[in-house]
Amino acid sequence: MKSILILFLVLVPACVLAQPKSIAEILAASPASDWRPIAPENLLVMELPAGRVLIELAPDFAPRHVANIRTLAMAKYWDGLAILRLQDNYVAQWGDPDEKTPRSFGDARRNLPPEWARPMTGMPAFTALGDRDTYAPETGFSGGFPAARDPKAGQAWLTHCYGMVGAGRDVKHDSGNGAELYAVITAATRALDRNVTLVGRVIQGIELLSSLRRGTKALGFYATAEERTPIKSVRLASDLPAADRPVLHALRTDSATFKATLDLRRFPKNEWFATPAGAIDVCNVTVAVR
Amino acid sequence: MKSILILFLVLVPACVLAQPKSIAEILAASPASDWRPIAPENLLVMELPAGRVLIELAPDFAPRHVANIRTLAMAKYWDGLAILRLQDNYVAQWGDPDEKTPRSFGDARRNLPPEWARPMTGMPAFTALGDRDTYAPETGFSGGFPAARDPKAGQAWLTHCYGMVGAGRDVKHDSGNGAELYAVITAATRALDRNVTLVGRVIQGIELLSSLRRGTKALGFYATAEERTPIKSVRLASDLPAADRPVLHALRTDSATFKATLDLRRFPKNEWFATPAGAIDVCNVTVAVR
Repeated sequence: MKSILILFLVLVPACVLAQPKSIAEILAASPASDWRPIAPENLLVMELPAGRVLIELAPDFAPRHVANIRTLAMAKYWDGLAILRLQDNYVAQWGDPDEKTPRSFGDARRNLPPEWARPMTGMPAFTALGDRDTYAPETGFSGGFPAARDPKAGQAWLTHCYGMVGAGRDVKHDSGNGAELYAVITAATRALDRNVTLVGRVIQGIELLSSLRRGTKALGFYATAEERTPIKSVRLASDLPAADRPVLHALRTDSATFKATLDLRRFPKNEWFATPAGAIDVCNVTVAVR
Repeated sequence: MKSILILFLVLVPACVLAQPKSIAEILAASPASDWRPIAPENLLVMELPAGRVLIELAPDFAPRHVANIRTLAMAKYWDGLAILRLQDNYVAQWGDPDEKTPRSFGDARRNLPPEWARPMTGMPAFTALGDRDTYAPETGFSGGFPAARDPKAGQAWLTHCYGMVGAGRDVKHDSGNGAELYAVITAATRALDRNVTLVGRVIQGIELLSSLRRGTKALGFYATAEERTPIKSVRLASDLPAADRPVLHALRTDSATFKATLDLRRFPKNEWFATPAGAIDVCNVTVAVR
């Protein structure tokens, strides 16, 4: 038995040695190299009365929308606008409540081609889950985001999981622009995949959105202006003074540590679980940020 | 073409004739016989400061837990207790906050055998989705509840979808009793399936739970008693005066109307959708109640 143990020690990542029982233990034992800094130019900081919501943008999947969002943030487009819609079990949506005299877009574009999917070629490293999925041939994680792939079509896309942020649009496919954004506040919106452009993920503060009172009009829009939550400001972290800039690292989704957390989710080493699921839904994993 | 149209008129349910574009249109056109009354003895009415949360119990899947919950409700066990835990993207949990001098169980039992799954034989009619699922060989709906089946094992169970209510337990499998209940406030908790007894579903008022402030201690427990939401009362509808009793009907999950809503979810007749999902996750369907 001893030789098997030694072989084990050589082959498996250090974090597995102590047979960790929890994801917290795996993360605590992880090497610093398994974490990546969140680039300040990809970090959107939304100030609400209750606190900060931090959104990591995904330029690898929605480069045009992300560029437009950066332009809007630099022009302080969202300052003084509001969260307009809170549909229970669906989304929180924010933007300009004034349809008659809408705020100027400045240098930002009003219409962008959809970025619902991208070629698999050149995408950030994909860690496949290998589990069956209702909506896509393959699911996994790419560049820190939950994602799906269709190898036959050669396409990849981000998936509508809790905390994912997308760009609202009208019926016309090119009517989105990133000015009206929504965050998924449930896990069950995968039917939106490849119908709307996902631009990033809330990496901190999603509970400030998901716990807001629900709107009572159709689609969860608020009936009165008073019910809306005002947005104090939205800035790119790269535009904030150094002292105000959040410094965060996300677990690399192509790291051994991340894969060890997936294994533990499939087969929890926790005596509470009597029937391990043995599989993971792509929306049942939150990529760790610290 | 005309003969094909006539054939179509004969073979399809009435609700499809007008080619409805929305689930609301399908429901509006449905015959009364496609709806079932919620039995008052299966309807739990929880009064919170913000309003009522209505829970339909599932005696076909958890008969012993439901019997215990009825006993506790009749003894007013939950009156004056509290919502103890609000873990973001997970569950709202309520029960007795006083571990030192816990409230008496009266005639209710302290320990119940787990009711995580039941034999397929004799279960309420199962409407299979037929779509791939990450967690189970088959998913669908049975007796109004989202459910899964393993035909090889001959077992069926309820699934942890948004609004489902379960009985918290400790490590010991028989440590649950229905006194400490939780409601799922996200869709992504299917790993709990067959690990804990699901006793029913919130059919009205789930937003009163899902929008509560999140607890800041481990597992989302509230740090102070003041943060907890008090429970004014919990009653079986059958114990309420007739004037206070909610009269509700749920769409039968084995009805033609329900199946028509599933078809529309797979392939929305809404020009907004460019990429129909063509499939449904069992947790992406809310059974209509009116």
